[in-house]
Amino acid sequence: MKNVPFKGIIAYPITPFDTNEKVDLPLFEKLVERLVVSGSNGIAPLGSTGVLPYLSDEEKEAVTEATLKQVKGRIPTLVGVSNLTTEKTIYHAQFAEKAGADAVMIIPMSYWKLTDDEIVAHYDKVAGKISIPIMAYNNPATGGVDMSPALLKRLLEIPNVTMIKESTGDIQRMHYLRKELGEDVAFYNGSNPLALAAFAAGARGWCTAAPNLIPELNIDLYKAIENNELREAQDIFYKQVELLRFIVSKGLPRAIKAGLNILGEDGGCLRSPLKPLQENEIKELKNIINNLKN
Amino acid sequence: MKNVPFKGIIAYPITPFDTNEKVDLPLFEKLVERLVVSGSNGIAPLGSTGVLPYLSDEEKEAVTEATLKQVKGRIPTLVGVSNLTTEKTIYHAQFAEKAGADAVMIIPMSYWKLTDDEIVAHYDKVAGKISIPIMAYNNPATGGVDMSPALLKRLLEIPNVTMIKESTGDIQRMHYLRKELGEDVAFYNGSNPLALAAFAAGARGWCTAAPNLIPELNIDLYKAIENNELREAQDIFYKQVELLRFIVSKGLPRAIKAGLNILGEDGGCLRSPLKPLQENEIKELKNIINNLKN
Amino acid sequence: MKNVPFKGIIAYPITPFDTNEKVDLPLFEKLVERLVVSGSNGIAPLGSTGVLPYLSDEEKEAVTEATLKQVKGRIPTLVGVSNLTTEKTIYHAQFAEKAGADAVMIIPMSYWKLTDDEIVAHYDKVAGKISIPIMAYNNPATGGVDMSPALLKRLLEIPNVTMIKESTGDIQRMHYLRKELGEDVAFYNGSNPLALAAFAAGARGWCTAAPNLIPELNIDLYKAIENNELREAQDIFYKQVELLRFIVSKGLPRAIKAGLNILGEDGGCLRSPLKPLQENEIKELKNIINNLKN
Amino acid sequence: MKNVPFKGIIAYPITPFDTNEKVDLPLFEKLVERLVVSGSNGIAPLGSTGVLPYLSDEEKEAVTEATLKQVKGRIPTLVGVSNLTTEKTIYHAQFAEKAGADAVMIIPMSYWKLTDDEIVAHYDKVAGKISIPIMAYNNPATGGVDMSPALLKRLLEIPNVTMIKESTGDIQRMHYLRKELGEDVAFYNGSNPLALAAFAAGARGWCTAAPNLIPELNIDLYKAIENNELREAQDIFYKQVELLRFIVSKGLPRAIKAGLNILGEDGGCLRSPLKPLQENEIKELKNIINNLKN
Repeated sequence: MKNVPFKGIIAYPITPFDTNEKVDLPLFEKLVERLVVSGSNGIAPLGSTGVLPYLSDEEKEAVTEATLKQVKGRIPTLVGVSNLTTEKTIYHAQFAEKAGADAVMIIPMSYWKLTDDEIVAHYDKVAGKISIPIMAYNNPATGGVDMSPALLKRLLEIPNVTMIKESTGDIQRMHYLRKELGEDVAFYNGSNPLALAAFAAGARGWCTAAPNLIPELNIDLYKAIENNELREAQDIFYKQVELLRFIVSKGLPRAIKAGLNILGEDGGCLRSPLKPLQENEIKELKNIINNLKN
Repeated sequence: MKNVPFKGIIAYPITPFDTNEKVDLPLFEKLVERLVVSGSNGIAPLGSTGVLPYLSDEEKEAVTEATLKQVKGRIPTLVGVSNLTTEKTIYHAQFAEKAGADAVMIIPMSYWKLTDDEIVAHYDKVAGKISIPIMAYNNPATGGVDMSPALLKRLLEIPNVTMIKESTGDIQRMHYLRKELGEDVAFYNGSNPLALAAFAAGARGWCTAAPNLIPELNIDLYKAIENNELREAQDIFYKQVELLRFIVSKGLPRAIKAGLNILGEDGGCLRSPLKPLQENEIKELKNIINNLKN
Repeated sequence: MKNVPFKGIIAYPITPFDTNEKVDLPLFEKLVERLVVSGSNGIAPLGSTGVLPYLSDEEKEAVTEATLKQVKGRIPTLVGVSNLTTEKTIYHAQFAEKAGADAVMIIPMSYWKLTDDEIVAHYDKVAGKISIPIMAYNNPATGGVDMSPALLKRLLEIPNVTMIKESTGDIQRMHYLRKELGEDVAFYNGSNPLALAAFAAGARGWCTAAPNLIPELNIDLYKAIENNELREAQDIFYKQVELLRFIVSKGLPRAIKAGLNILGEDGGCLRSPLKPLQENEIKELKNIINNLKN
Repeated sequence: MKNVPFKGIIAYPITPFDTNEKVDLPLFEKLVERLVVSGSNGIAPLGSTGVLPYLSDEEKEAVTEATLKQVKGRIPTLVGVSNLTTEKTIYHAQFAEKAGADAVMIIPMSYWKLTDDEIVAHYDKVAGKISIPIMAYNNPATGGVDMSPALLKRLLEIPNVTMIKESTGDIQRMHYLRKELGEDVAFYNGSNPLALAAFAAGARGWCTAAPNLIPELNIDLYKAIENNELREAQDIFYKQVELLRFIVSKGLPRAIKAGLNILGEDGGCLRSPLKPLQENEIKELKNIINNLKN
C-alpha cells in the first residue's frame, strides 16, 4: 500500500509580513495554531496561499521549521518545495524532509513550457533524493503548465509520488483519474468552488485556504460526505460557496488577509507587488461573512 | 408555483433517416417507444440529438406529431423549436403546442452573436404567443451563444420561461443558478459527463441521449440520488462515465446510431454531411458497451 | 492555371428588410449599384453580411437573381450558398451557377462539429455538381468549425476549389498557406482589422462589407499595396482601422445599416432577433465617420 | 522627446551552461560577440531566451557585467531585470544601471494574477529608483499576465517607461498602440512569426533570438522595410518564417542551442528541468536550416 498521509481538510496558512514586508514568523505561528485547533486534518505551508515563489530560500526554511515546531505532530504536515530549477527543488525537498515534514508538494513551475519528459525527469530526480511521499500538484493558472491526466498517471508510477492535487477546476479530470487508476488513487481537490463535486467524485481530501476563515463549514462538508449524507452536504456547500468563489476570484493571500481582519484577527501585511483588497471589495467580503451566520 | 413538468431522466431520441436520407418515421416511432417503455421520465424530440437544424419545416412537424401520437401522454413531451429567426421560432412553438407538447425547448441559435437584449426580446416574443412553458437551453458549443447566469436569470422573469437546461459543462453555472435563484429554480443538466456533479448540485433532471443505449444505468443514477445514497450514485456513475464521454466526443447522432447497431437495433442512416463513425471508433464503442456488463 | 476570378476589394452588400421584415429587393439593388459604381473589384451577395442563414430558399434565389441582373457583368459576382446539409448546398450552388455567378462561396456550416473527412466529402460532392469555381471560407466565429491549414490544403486538391477566404484573424494561417502552397495560392482576407497585415502577407484580395461605408479608403489601401508603397498603405490603413474594428465588434449587418443611415442612405430594417444598434453606439459610429474626414 | 535608445534588430543571447549546469561566462561572451559583429542594432541579455528566472542573483549580475564588458558600447544594451517582487526588481534595475545598461526590460512576472493598479505601482516604484529608460514587456505566455492596451497606455505615462515590447502575437494590439498613442509611440515586436506584420504596422524594432542563427535574414528584413520595399520584405520574410516558427514552438533556449550546434558552434548545456531537443526535432531543424540556402 502506498504511503498516503492525508485525508479530509488540508488547511493552507498564508505567510504574513510585517510593515517592512519581512516575514512575520510569530504571527505565522499563531495562524498555524488556529488552523490546528479548529480541526483541520492536515496543514500545508508554502503553497500558493503561502506565496512560496515570493520568498527567499532563508525565508522558506524558517517557515518550514516554524510550522513543524508549532504543529508538533498533532496533524500531518505537507510542505511546498516547488522551484523553477530541479536543483533547487531537490534542495528544498531535502530540507523539508530533514525538518520533519510528512510529505512535500511539488508543482512543475514553468517559465518555458516544459515537455512531458522534462516534467517526469524533474519529479523523478527529486523523488530519488528523498524518502517521504510527494503530492504532484496541477494548477495551470498559477504554475503555467497543464499536466494531462495521462501525464499524472506517469508521475504516479514513480514510487514516492503517491498523491495528486488537481486544481484545474475541471471535474472530468477527477473522473479520469478515478476511472483510469482505480478506487485507490489518492486525488485531492485544490479548486475551492469544486469542493462538493470533487467529494462526490471521490476526492480523498480538499486542499484549501478557507479554514483560515470558515473551518467549521469546511469540516462539516467533509463529515457529511463521510456519512454518505448527500443532501446535508449540498446544504452545507451552498452556505459557503459564495465565500469560496470570492477568495478564489480575488487571490487567496489578499482575500484571506482581508477576511482575517474582518474576523478581528491580525492578517499581517502583503509583499509588493501584491496589495490589499480595495474598500468596496472588503465591504463585499464583509457582507458574505455576515450572511454565513444565517 | 411555476409550471415545471419535468424531473429525472429526460430522453432524447435521434431522428433516423432512410437510405435516401429522408426521415424514417416508422423507425423514429419505434425508437421513441423504446425510450418510453425503458422508464424515461420525459422525452424530448428535435433536440441536438434529433438533428433539428438539419430538418425542413415539414419534417419537424411530422416528427413532432409522430412523437405525441406514439407517447400518448404516458410521459411528458418537450419539443425542440429553436430557429435562427424569431418568426420561425414562434411558428414552430405554436405548432408544438397545438400538437399537444407539454413544453418547448429553445436555444438562442446564433449566426451573428446576439446581444443580451436581443435574446431576451426573442424569448419574450415567443413566450407571448404560446401558453405552455419554455425550457431555455444554454449550449455555446452547438448554439454559438453563451448565456451568462445573469442573462438566464432575466429569462426566468418571463412568466412561462420556467426551466433552464445548462450544457456548458461548467458546474459553477449550476451553483450560481441555485444560489441566486433559490432552491426552487428548475435547472437541468445537459452535459452527460457532468451527470453526477449536477445531481449533487441539485439539478432537477438530466437531459440525455444515453437512454437510447443504457436506460437502466441512467435511471438508477437518478434513483440513488433521490434516495440520498451518494456512494451508490458514485458507483453507478463510474460504471457509465466512459460511455457518456464517448457519445459526447463523437457527436450524439453518430454515436447513438452506432450504439444501437451494436445492441442489435436499427439506428437508420445519417443525413450528409454527417457520416457514420469509422471502424476503429465502432470497435472502441463495442468495448465500452461490453465492459458495462461487468 | 486555376480559375481565380477575384482580386482586390470584394464588396459584401447587406440584405435589407422592409418594416414587415420581408426582403426589400429594390433597396438591395440600389445598395448593389452603389458598391459597383464606387469601384469595388468584385461583389459577394449572401455572405454573413447578407444574413444568408436567416433567409428562406426563395429569398436566397431572389437575392441571387437581383444581384446578377443589377451587376450586369461589370464586375465578377461571388454568391454565398452555404447550408447545413449537403443536399441543400448543392441545390443553391446549382441555382447560382445557372443564374450566372462567377463563383460560389461555401463555409462548412456546422451544428454538430464536422470531422475533416466529412468536410472534404461535403465540398467534393458540391464541387462535382457545378463547373464554376468555389471559394472555401473559414470562419470559426460564425460557422462553428475551424478548418486547419492542413484541411484547407486538402480542399484545394478538389479541382474547382480554387480560392480560400481566411477569417480567423490569425495572420499565421496566411503565412502557412503561402509557404505550404506556393506563391500562386489564391487566399483572401476576411478579417477587416487584418487588412494591412494580410496584404503584406500576400493576400490576393480583401472580402469586406466596409465599401458600403468607405469605398475610397478600402480601394486606396489596395492600390498602395499594388504600387509597393508600404508607408502609404500604413497611413491609409490607420485612417480606417477604427471603423473596421467598430463594424466587426458590433456585427456587420447592424453596423452597416447604422453607417448607411449616418451617411444619409437608406439601410432598411433588420430581421429579428437582430436589432438596430443602440443610441450610444450610433453616436460612437458618427464620431468615427466624422474623424475620417481629417 | 522621450529617451528611446533602440531601433531595428534587438538580439537576445542565450545563457549557456557548462556540464555541471553552471553559467559558462566565457562561452556567453563569445555568443554576445557573434551577435554584435553580425550587425544587430541592439543586444538584450537576461530575457526569456536568456532564462532569466532560472538564474541566481549572483549569476544575473555576472551576466550583466559580462555583456557590458564585451559590447563596449558598440551597440545599446537592454538588460532584463524582471522579478516576482518589487524589491528584487528594483535591486536588479539599479545594478544594471550602475553596470552601464542603456535601458532595462521589465515583464510583470506573476504567480498571483496582478491587478492593473498593482502593475502600475510596480513599474512606478522601479522607475522612481533609476534614471535609465524602461521597456515594458507584455508576454502572457511566459509571464502569466496579459496587459491590456489601456494598461500599457497608463504605463507609458510614467516618465521613464518609454518603450513597449508586445509578444502576444496579436497584431491588433500594435494597431491600438499606434492609433491611440500616435506615430511616435515606440513599440517593439517580440513575436517572431509576426515580424513582417509588425513592421508593416509600424513597429520600431524586433526583439528576437533569431540572430543567433540567421542574422543576415533578420537584418535584411528590417532594411527592406526601411527602404519601403514591401515585396522584397515579403520575400525575405517567407524565407525565414519556418525557422521563426520552429524556434518559438520548441522553446527558444532549446532551439537556439540546437541551431548553434547545427551551425558548428558551441551552444553549451541547458539547466534542468530544461532538456535538449530530441533527435527528430534536431533533424527537422537541420532541414529548415539547409533549406535557407536555396
